[in-house]
Amino acid sequence: MTNKATANGVKIEGVTLTELRQICDDRGAVLHMMRSDTPEFTRFGECYFSEVLPGGIKAWKRHRAQTQNLAVPVGRIRMVIYDDREDSATKGQLQELELGRPDAYLRLRIPPGLWYGFACLGDSSALLANCADLPHDPTESDLRPIDDAGIPYRWGKQNP
Amino acid sequence: MTNKATANGVKIEGVTLTELRQICDDRGAVLHMMRSDTPEFTRFGECYFSEVLPGGIKAWKRHRAQTQNLAVPVGRIRMVIYDDREDSATKGQLQELELGRPDAYLRLRIPPGLWYGFACLGDSSALLANCADLPHDPTESDLRPIDDAGIPYRWGKQNP
Repeated sequence: MTNKATANGVKIEGVTLTELRQICDDRGAVLHMMRSDTPEFTRFGECYFSEVLPGGIKAWKRHRAQTQNLAVPVGRIRMVIYDDREDSATKGQLQELELGRPDAYLRLRIPPGLWYGFACLGDSSALLANCADLPHDPTESDLRPIDDAGIPYRWGKQNP
Repeated sequence: MTNKATANGVKIEGVTLTELRQICDDRGAVLHMMRSDTPEFTRFGECYFSEVLPGGIKAWKRHRAQTQNLAVPVGRIRMVIYDDREDSATKGQLQELELGRPDAYLRLRIPPGLWYGFACLGDSSALLANCADLPHDPTESDLRPIDDAGIPYRWGKQNP
């Protein structure tokens, strides 16, 4: 079983996956991420990148205000999202997604209130890009340890 | 001689280089790119990525309206900028810059009107990220062939 992300494969309320264009030629691809006229675009807060080295896992984080708009232009990432929002139709759901080119180059929107974490898959580093709607503000996010018992997911060694 | 980019190493009018933060840990770095409160930020048009495969060269392009805000989070790139603007104090100048981590992780601003091109350095692919101030519009840019005689630069095989 794989959890390769697909645009219609979302099961958590408020999360969206959108296919992004990859314009390929023999010099290297042009990879779309976000435009000001993208229907999903609200405002620009910050663009930054999170590198994940082979074996690296970054978990868990929850934003209270900032929406994440994520894509993986390099390498392959396992993203895990957990919904414990009191008012959510999908409370208690957990979703694993694999993101990476060429088969799963999508923009993943994670609204505030969801726990998420991600890991590098395979033997080469991955890059997660974020076009968030607010600039980074450490006071609006929460962290939990990677092995937090309140989230029903165990991060083992990640294999593709 | 190297042309490693440094924040005070710009010689073409209107071009800027700004050091960006790299927040490193053993899982992989967080790499700043642009924030809405960055002094240089004007507006968000489009974020996209240009992959350059080993041996790949993408040249020449000039935008008439769009400003490029570029950084290289993965791999290493040689960027060449040529100024033939009639009203420029640096008309006729050409500048080569090397961009890449960890020593030259900078944001390069290229205003409209300048010719530029870039090449992958070394044996692994590079990624150029752009947070441009306008969304892509093919009618506002011009192209010239890689060996255009009007630009005093010859793209040979690129070695680091």
